[in-house]
Amino acid sequence: MSLSLSAAIIIIGDEILSGRTRDINIQTIAQFLEPLGISVAECRIIPDIREKIVATVNAMRREYAYVFTTGGIGPTHDDITADSVAAAFGVDIGIRDDARAILETRYAENGIELTSARLRMARIPDGASLIANPVSGAPGFQLENVFVLAGVPSIVRGMLLDVEHRLKTGVVTTVSNVKCPGLREGDIAESLSKIAEAFPSVSVGSYPWYTDPNDSGVNIVIRGKDAELVRKAAHETFQMIEASGIQPDSDQL
Amino acid sequence: MSLSLSAAIIIIGDEILSGRTRDINIQTIAQFLEPLGISVAECRIIPDIREKIVATVNAMRREYAYVFTTGGIGPTHDDITADSVAAAFGVDIGIRDDARAILETRYAENGIELTSARLRMARIPDGASLIANPVSGAPGFQLENVFVLAGVPSIVRGMLLDVEHRLKTGVVTTVSNVKCPGLREGDIAESLSKIAEAFPSVSVGSYPWYTDPNDSGVNIVIRGKDAELVRKAAHETFQMIEASGIQPDSDQL
Repeated sequence: MSLSLSAAIIIIGDEILSGRTRDINIQTIAQFLEPLGISVAECRIIPDIREKIVATVNAMRREYAYVFTTGGIGPTHDDITADSVAAAFGVDIGIRDDARAILETRYAENGIELTSARLRMARIPDGASLIANPVSGAPGFQLENVFVLAGVPSIVRGMLLDVEHRLKTGVVTTVSNVKCPGLREGDIAESLSKIAEAFPSVSVGSYPWYTDPNDSGVNIVIRGKDAELVRKAAHETFQMIEASGIQPDSDQL
Repeated sequence: MSLSLSAAIIIIGDEILSGRTRDINIQTIAQFLEPLGISVAECRIIPDIREKIVATVNAMRREYAYVFTTGGIGPTHDDITADSVAAAFGVDIGIRDDARAILETRYAENGIELTSARLRMARIPDGASLIANPVSGAPGFQLENVFVLAGVPSIVRGMLLDVEHRLKTGVVTTVSNVKCPGLREGDIAESLSKIAEAFPSVSVGSYPWYTDPNDSGVNIVIRGKDAELVRKAAHETFQMIEASGIQPDSDQL
């Protein structure tokens, strides 16, 4: 078991970059990985451009333990992720019998014709293993440390069920959240900095929210691999906030 | 007026990577830029790590016309964006009189003490111009083509009011959305590919949704700089979908 395992997420899709659609897959994947002790260290959102996908996959698969891509594996002309990932690894891609069998079975059950466009979804890079898609059939795939998932959020959630058993696990990060309604960051910044200094192996993050003048505050989020140190740092933070005159909520004290 | 202006967004913050918070600033900034004819070409979400911020800012400011960062400019110890951006540009950073004056005025109005922690928010890299923050006072800044904004969504929206007049504008992309409830991508993939081929200067994207078996379909999004070509491609798409037996909605026909 490795202490620290890091992952990267590549969201492939013009529709997120245009602002038309708000991504949710990053949050889904990050929350899936957290209890496995795998931290998301970087995300990139890139357009459906082959050279960009190739370069991004190659940069990230060398830097991180795991890489997850979402989007671009459907049947339409703009679905170029599988071909691009094959190019990134320098391997061939073609229709594979096991993937074709999955599509044949699924479409026969639903009385849908397996058109040549749908057969594109059986194109799998050489050497990849399939990732089951319990929602709509067409599989994703794993090539070494890269997991290629669909873009539709419900399908991403379904595919992750067939990913967990393939991952090494790290030490789970313990997280404690001290929610401080009405707090202003500047009032406790110095005290909080001292707590952060006293617990160098723990990360102390301060995240203000400001919805309107009547709904603002600060979430202080404490994370670390040593649960006892996280608990101690959170306890000190809680007491420090109380002493400042604000009554915090905490999820883990 | 340039035909194509591209921007990149850098979201700085562990809280997005952990999955605790779902980002909305990408969508806000993309929707702000679209009517200015500026397209978001890439987004990166990175942790609060100085070396990572420096490397990412330097890679992206050379590749794209504009770069927007969000997050990490508050008063607490984990707010390291301003110092990191200064390092990326190789310039000094220190408390600046105009930024300090803004904070003094704002805090005096609200009866809040200007602590040394709060004064950190007046630290501005040499050569930068301030970006007004109508929500909470503490300014962002612009250094060459890099715009450094807060992370709190309401403050990002406020700061963008002081950004628009600084940007060159490109030709606005015309977008037409043909929404097809109940459509399966595989049924129209070949016809759609032919339309995409017939309009090479237009981008034709196909984005399925699948909430459950009773709520699924495809959004076909057509974009281009030539409004007339977009209209024609959308019209052909609409007719093709109708001919397939599905009644589409369209926002721009």
